[in-house]
Amino acid sequence: MSKKIKIGITHGDINGVGYEVILKSFSNPQMFDLCIPILYGSPKVAAYQRKTLDISTTFSIINNAGEAEERKFSVLNCVDDDILVEFSRPDRKAGKSALMALEKAVEDYKAGLIDVIVTGPINKNTIHSDDFNFPGHTEFFEEKLGEGKKSLMILMNGDFRMALTTTHMPLKEVPNSITKELIQEKLTVFEETLKNDFGILKPRIAVFSLNPHAGDDGLLGSEEQEVIIPALKEKADEGMLCYGPYAADGFMGSGNFTHFDGVLAMYHDQGLAPFKALSMSEGVNFTAGLPVVRTSPAHGTAYDIAGKGDANEDSFRQAIYAAIDIYRNRSMNEKLVSGSIDNED
Amino acid sequence: MSKKIKIGITHGDINGVGYEVILKSFSNPQMFDLCIPILYGSPKVAAYQRKTLDISTTFSIINNAGEAEERKFSVLNCVDDDILVEFSRPDRKAGKSALMALEKAVEDYKAGLIDVIVTGPINKNTIHSDDFNFPGHTEFFEEKLGEGKKSLMILMNGDFRMALTTTHMPLKEVPNSITKELIQEKLTVFEETLKNDFGILKPRIAVFSLNPHAGDDGLLGSEEQEVIIPALKEKADEGMLCYGPYAADGFMGSGNFTHFDGVLAMYHDQGLAPFKALSMSEGVNFTAGLPVVRTSPAHGTAYDIAGKGDANEDSFRQAIYAAIDIYRNRSMNEKLVSGSIDNED
Repeated sequence: MSKKIKIGITHGDINGVGYEVILKSFSNPQMFDLCIPILYGSPKVAAYQRKTLDISTTFSIINNAGEAEERKFSVLNCVDDDILVEFSRPDRKAGKSALMALEKAVEDYKAGLIDVIVTGPINKNTIHSDDFNFPGHTEFFEEKLGEGKKSLMILMNGDFRMALTTTHMPLKEVPNSITKELIQEKLTVFEETLKNDFGILKPRIAVFSLNPHAGDDGLLGSEEQEVIIPALKEKADEGMLCYGPYAADGFMGSGNFTHFDGVLAMYHDQGLAPFKALSMSEGVNFTAGLPVVRTSPAHGTAYDIAGKGDANEDSFRQAIYAAIDIYRNRSMNEKLVSGSIDNED
Repeated sequence: MSKKIKIGITHGDINGVGYEVILKSFSNPQMFDLCIPILYGSPKVAAYQRKTLDISTTFSIINNAGEAEERKFSVLNCVDDDILVEFSRPDRKAGKSALMALEKAVEDYKAGLIDVIVTGPINKNTIHSDDFNFPGHTEFFEEKLGEGKKSLMILMNGDFRMALTTTHMPLKEVPNSITKELIQEKLTVFEETLKNDFGILKPRIAVFSLNPHAGDDGLLGSEEQEVIIPALKEKADEGMLCYGPYAADGFMGSGNFTHFDGVLAMYHDQGLAPFKALSMSEGVNFTAGLPVVRTSPAHGTAYDIAGKGDANEDSFRQAIYAAIDIYRNRSMNEKLVSGSIDNED
């Protein structure tokens, strides 16, 4: 029997659906068979949302992560007392409280008090400040807990894993950002994570083109010939099972993605629009490549349905499962590599 | 009882799945209740593919479109005698024969011998020549039969219609091509076609952002604030029901697209990757905005399955249905406008 994994959950934006999906996820007692959850947030907000949305999950208030007990949903206060929920409202104070939870979780992770981090959705505009000058969680964790490693943003649903070469940048900056080095860096991280975190011995990776129709042999752009194909060829020559570049639309339409362990898109909407079209309600966002395991639901704050009780918690629950699976696979792999595995495991 | 619509079908690339899906579509005799089909192609190729792929559809050879009879699948020879099928092979001669069929269909359309055009998939590389210097069918028909009108590329499946602001261009040219004028031109054509060709009295149109997360209020790009929002505001002030800009991934993931009659994407992969992920097997490509009604299946030549008999004809059959529906709606609308409708119609 493995020891239970301590999951640090950051509450995200208190005016979105975060608390709703977090609390609903732990309304099923079986979740406590797998992990010890610690919510970095506000007991006051948790109590308010629990009551307003009529969710059965009970919780214990703790003063530090070391107090978290088995089979209890623990809430650690990270925020100012005067915090108030106003569903669907972008609010600077809510943004600040989202950041305070993230910072406390990072501190506790560094202190070894939690094993993995699962993040509730934030409002990127209200959290944005001098202390949070990142386009999203991915870049925040890369800086805070990356130890110099480069992250790879992966959206996943079961065996369908969509990774991004570039993430949060204006579209006009994308073409010049696509370099042979960047593609190869992302491919290397992708292959490593598929091996170590998902236990795939020899992963097969498909790569999208930058231009429509994969550039139609140069008629619709030259980056395929000049950058992407040479990048893939070098990695293939080294033995990587990477293929492409594929035109994104035809690749998604033909169902070809089911034949690969991972798909590397060139930019945000190219990968995430088709991914979410197919997988929104169960999609999980995983920040690969870093020492810390961090996942989140694929959806955002969903202000349009916040406070109504209609939010679906499947994606959040899948984010919990994914963090646990990845943590276990990685630990197992480290033991295999170090030779320390034995019959007791 | 409406008169039967004469459908000119261009054979496309003879080495892809074109003949297979065309012949399979007309293996159902009920198709002849709706239309009189004329295949612009090669009786020799039709006979070869019919036999090789074991398709029951029989056909009559005609020498000009005026000879086409009811309840018969007519084939009009447009190509050189020495044409040979080599499945899955890109071939200049096949490209030339695809172009010859297109040119003959355009000629016959101008002469009033056919009512609508449905195109089989072409190989854009082998058809490319001094005589076909277009990135695709859409631009070809705009020039040949557009009469100065601007086209709009729409992919559709039932009530889900995805239109593109820019179509076949390198990604790096997209941001500078997105102007207020272009967005408004496309919106105008989109609204007109939804009204006249689809019979929607007051169409609701959603518009995608150019940048990820709709630019996050400027953090991830300025085109939303500077171009797209002002373009939409002016059209909305004129009374158009246009909304957005929406982040493509969240919009597709939330199922929000089901609340609109049409969605306008900013560029090719942004619109078509999610569209095809959801709709490949039944998707139809419609060139809106032109005097001629032209449709095609959403898929391409599909060399990977050509000659195996595995191609699904649903998309081609839907392209036939769509051309008929649009032609009828448009004719009805013209009669309504001119006041010539009466009880006999």
